[in-house]
Amino acid sequence: MALAEVCLEEYRERIRKELDNAVDFWLKYSHDTIYGGFFTCIGRDGKVYDELKYVWLQGRQVWMYCRLYRTMDRFRKPEILEAAKAGGAFLRKFARVSSGQWKCAFCLTRDGKAVKIQRTIFSECFYIMAIDELGRVLGDKDMQLEAEQLMEQLIYWVKEDSSGLGRPQLPGDVPTNSMAVPMMLLCLVQQLTDGRGQEVVHKYRELASWCVQQILQHIQRDGTAILENVSPEGAELPGCQGRLQNPGHALEAGWFLLQVSAEQGDAELRQTAINKFVELPYQKGWDKEHGGLFYFLDVDGHCPTQLEWSMKLWWPHCEALIAFLMAYSQTKKPELLETFSQVYEYTFNHFPDAKNGEWFGYLTQEGKVTLDFKGGPFKGFFHVPRCLYMCERMLDDLLANTKD
Amino acid sequence: MALAEVCLEEYRERIRKELDNAVDFWLKYSHDTIYGGFFTCIGRDGKVYDELKYVWLQGRQVWMYCRLYRTMDRFRKPEILEAAKAGGAFLRKFARVSSGQWKCAFCLTRDGKAVKIQRTIFSECFYIMAIDELGRVLGDKDMQLEAEQLMEQLIYWVKEDSSGLGRPQLPGDVPTNSMAVPMMLLCLVQQLTDGRGQEVVHKYRELASWCVQQILQHIQRDGTAILENVSPEGAELPGCQGRLQNPGHALEAGWFLLQVSAEQGDAELRQTAINKFVELPYQKGWDKEHGGLFYFLDVDGHCPTQLEWSMKLWWPHCEALIAFLMAYSQTKKPELLETFSQVYEYTFNHFPDAKNGEWFGYLTQEGKVTLDFKGGPFKGFFHVPRCLYMCERMLDDLLANTKD
Repeated sequence: MALAEVCLEEYRERIRKELDNAVDFWLKYSHDTIYGGFFTCIGRDGKVYDELKYVWLQGRQVWMYCRLYRTMDRFRKPEILEAAKAGGAFLRKFARVSSGQWKCAFCLTRDGKAVKIQRTIFSECFYIMAIDELGRVLGDKDMQLEAEQLMEQLIYWVKEDSSGLGRPQLPGDVPTNSMAVPMMLLCLVQQLTDGRGQEVVHKYRELASWCVQQILQHIQRDGTAILENVSPEGAELPGCQGRLQNPGHALEAGWFLLQVSAEQGDAELRQTAINKFVELPYQKGWDKEHGGLFYFLDVDGHCPTQLEWSMKLWWPHCEALIAFLMAYSQTKKPELLETFSQVYEYTFNHFPDAKNGEWFGYLTQEGKVTLDFKGGPFKGFFHVPRCLYMCERMLDDLLANTKD
Repeated sequence: MALAEVCLEEYRERIRKELDNAVDFWLKYSHDTIYGGFFTCIGRDGKVYDELKYVWLQGRQVWMYCRLYRTMDRFRKPEILEAAKAGGAFLRKFARVSSGQWKCAFCLTRDGKAVKIQRTIFSECFYIMAIDELGRVLGDKDMQLEAEQLMEQLIYWVKEDSSGLGRPQLPGDVPTNSMAVPMMLLCLVQQLTDGRGQEVVHKYRELASWCVQQILQHIQRDGTAILENVSPEGAELPGCQGRLQNPGHALEAGWFLLQVSAEQGDAELRQTAINKFVELPYQKGWDKEHGGLFYFLDVDGHCPTQLEWSMKLWWPHCEALIAFLMAYSQTKKPELLETFSQVYEYTFNHFPDAKNGEWFGYLTQEGKVTLDFKGGPFKGFFHVPRCLYMCERMLDDLLANTKD
């Protein structure tokens, strides 16, 4: 017990430092003081190598700044608040493709002109997260309202009619329950309801249950695998798409489900989350030869067609750290802390850049840095700080309880 | 001279064998005798791991079978002709998304239902190649006519109005001359005019010149780099997109230009093709540490954002082999044959699968096979056999001339 405590202290120390470093890095290099918003393509040394502004990452950075500002004393600093406000203003001014419509761009020029639209809901999801969290910080009810209105649109696109997303209906394109969709909606329900009282909770209760059920449908092959895409009825789909496993994504779903189980005091859901969405993807996804989590795997052992399948990306490791620490916090089972430690060792030995700060995002299977930027089209101020923030808070609680 | 001759003989021997093996592999494993067309997702050992049929690859396989049947005696076999006819029938029946329209799907189910449409012209390009070459084999004028009609539609999309491709016009999405487009059109002009007399040549002459000019616009930075995307006026574009280099693609453009220069007896174009599109991309793109051609590079040395940038793919090596052997054939400069030999050594030491036949397509930077399938969404019966076919013919000519 004393030994575990020493370890937890060490982890917290390192994690605090890494979080401070990550925040410093993005505060220093990512703010566009001329056009507003954030640069997201940032090189190894902090230099902006492309001025495009990816909307997912704009929204995520606003959210993360606000969450840190609102809930951690040492980040309650004017420069963080100002940056979040400027990012929120940029998003609200430019992200939506045309006024009166909710569809958001995927990518903008530096001065806010739409470059690309995805025919999915994810730009809109991160817009909601941003605007709701910013509304909380500022006490701005209009922002909460805007977030809830856009949420209604999302629910309509997902559950009623997706034609507004612009994807043509094709006879061979079978309906799919892709795990990302219920995960994002569940994340948004937690965002919109957190600490807001029964009325809002009630409003989204049915949606939350639906999301949980949709996520649980991904448990396949008699409980031996989490598959990324299933049919809307929860059956396995044919081909590569149906056999695809994304261990990092399953682990992220795992800690989403653990949060729900804790809120609802649902012990059965907790057990399912731990067995199927935390332990199982780790067992399947961990590279026994070189360490680290594979990005994609085929459940039947075929080679995935994604060229990056064997690479080690930063974000699945972030999700694994959160998932195992949360599972341990809720159960105190030592084997969960052991796996956390293993993931921790790999992660902190491979991803942080001791020289220039922040983390590398992309390693070869063997663990060599192969893309050395700190920010890119899909890597921004989000997975690294969210992981460090959540782990720090969980370690605070664990250590406080140990000392009781 | 005698030494070079021995080498050329050895090369031809190996290349002949590899071509026979590749043809055998696809004849054996890729034919769908129930629904027609070709399986394109074929594992290391020949097993179909996904039944989806990618239209690019259906078209390319029809074209390649027909070209081999039509121009190489040892492939003038009924089973090749029958397979090409069945593939052509499948394409004509299912590739076009709706009757009366020219837009083709990108991917079909096994029984021909559209799964996905790309908002580009490439499915249509490979449809034209297939149907024109099949028309030549069968002496079917209707096919030639269909190919020319679709060609008119392509030219309209590229030069007049692209809105029929379905991509929304966005204010930040600047017009781009992406090298793939004039390359593909030039390839189609060569396909449609080859051996067909002055009337057809005349019909496409202006387009051919336009394609050559559009390709030459990609020579940038005072002639020190080929950039993959430029403005329609030939200026460098900002950001990652503007700085992108794709050495394999530049090399492929190189031998397209060499073909044009030979047809037109244009010595200046030949010199430009060799200096800028053959030697330069090789110098920039060859990995001095591990050998092989990088997939993508940034002209200013930033890290590309494509996760696969440092991987070694089969097709750039195929294009390099054709380009250097063609450049040598036209000039007899020994340094071009030397580089061919270097690429040859890397290629034949890394890509062929001695055990199960055909080639692997995807290696790590260090040269380890990292995706082990023989066919996938972008790898079919095309780059490997086209390279082997063209190199064998060029070696035949070189050796015949040496013996004169």
